[in-house]
Amino acid sequence: MTPRIVELRQGILKKNDQLAAGLRGRFRAAGVYVVNLVSSPGSGKTLLLEKTLAALKDAGIRTAALVGDLETENDAQRLARSGVPVRQIQTHGICHLEADMVERHLKGWDLSHLDILFIENIGNLVCTSSYDLGESCRVALLSVTEGEDKPRKYPSLYHSADVALITKIDLAEVCEFDREAAHASLLDVRPGLRLIETSAKTGQGMEEWLGFITRKAVEPEL
Amino acid sequence: MTPRIVELRQGILKKNDQLAAGLRGRFRAAGVYVVNLVSSPGSGKTLLLEKTLAALKDAGIRTAALVGDLETENDAQRLARSGVPVRQIQTHGICHLEADMVERHLKGWDLSHLDILFIENIGNLVCTSSYDLGESCRVALLSVTEGEDKPRKYPSLYHSADVALITKIDLAEVCEFDREAAHASLLDVRPGLRLIETSAKTGQGMEEWLGFITRKAVEPEL
Repeated sequence: MTPRIVELRQGILKKNDQLAAGLRGRFRAAGVYVVNLVSSPGSGKTLLLEKTLAALKDAGIRTAALVGDLETENDAQRLARSGVPVRQIQTHGICHLEADMVERHLKGWDLSHLDILFIENIGNLVCTSSYDLGESCRVALLSVTEGEDKPRKYPSLYHSADVALITKIDLAEVCEFDREAAHASLLDVRPGLRLIETSAKTGQGMEEWLGFITRKAVEPEL
Repeated sequence: MTPRIVELRQGILKKNDQLAAGLRGRFRAAGVYVVNLVSSPGSGKTLLLEKTLAALKDAGIRTAALVGDLETENDAQRLARSGVPVRQIQTHGICHLEADMVERHLKGWDLSHLDILFIENIGNLVCTSSYDLGESCRVALLSVTEGEDKPRKYPSLYHSADVALITKIDLAEVCEFDREAAHASLLDVRPGLRLIETSAKTGQGMEEWLGFITRKAVEPEL
């Protein structure tokens, strides 16, 4: 990149960071815990979120979701079936969510009536990691179908995560998933990272995931 | 995006288009057919390329490969085992390849000694579609593990493709892959798009893919 582009990109990121800091203060004041879900396209964010919203609703936890997509409203329509408030953010060609997109889509929502707000980011392992959305927790998904080396190949995303979910674990055997290699790759990029293996399809690991996120929502410093 | 950012982005793309046009002329003059492989991370580009390079070498077709990655040289090391010339392009945080990166990595290669040059792009369904690399053919991969809706959700990538490979077809059943829905989604985004179902692991569809790409290399207008 030319120095001018680097400078401009830094300016954009700085402005985003300022907006995100404002959002973070607003979320904290309202007492809402905000979760940013990041991953490749097709790693299972939407199904995980669908099951998560339903389970938390049954448990009496008040949630809402913002879902990012380039063009369609498919995910919002799918998630709306859970009965919780859902809004679609269409980025029209932008490959990641930014703090101002989140801010604009919160209008009219009383955040103090929510316990957890989920944000499903665009499927992208690169630029999503550079944009702070004011979240309390960044969750990076890695599907067993993607290959164990992805954390090393896309380090910034996994490095900036607070927890990694290894998804589609029901396909581990048929994909010849090398569990040790995947854990080593994740922990190499972020030593000590909490890893949870899940299958939104079979339910495996969902209790651990739901327990983790609800405990964090009550006591973020845990 | 602000008008200034839009303007700057257009400028970058215009400059890239000019460079790509120059590259295209150079490739044509040298008689080398250039294939740009684009997809999500983990859809199987590297394994497909590994098998493709080996098969074409056995068939006496002279190939080389440029492989994009953010940080590692893993893919180049893996592909070098095929015995054909391979170079890694490290983008250091940029989420796509650009024409000038390709140009810089061609230095010292005599293109007139090659029949097909493969370029493995960064795993990204958004920005890779905006950057022309001077290729003769753009191949978009869609893995059966990613979900049938991805072409509609990331239309620009599949719309700009000359052929779509549905990869990991050996996992179709276990992933409950809906073949009709996937084809409909691809053809909705690009009517008439040639679709080839492949498994680099079992070899299914590889003959069709290799036949397609070698025929195109000999007679690009086919």
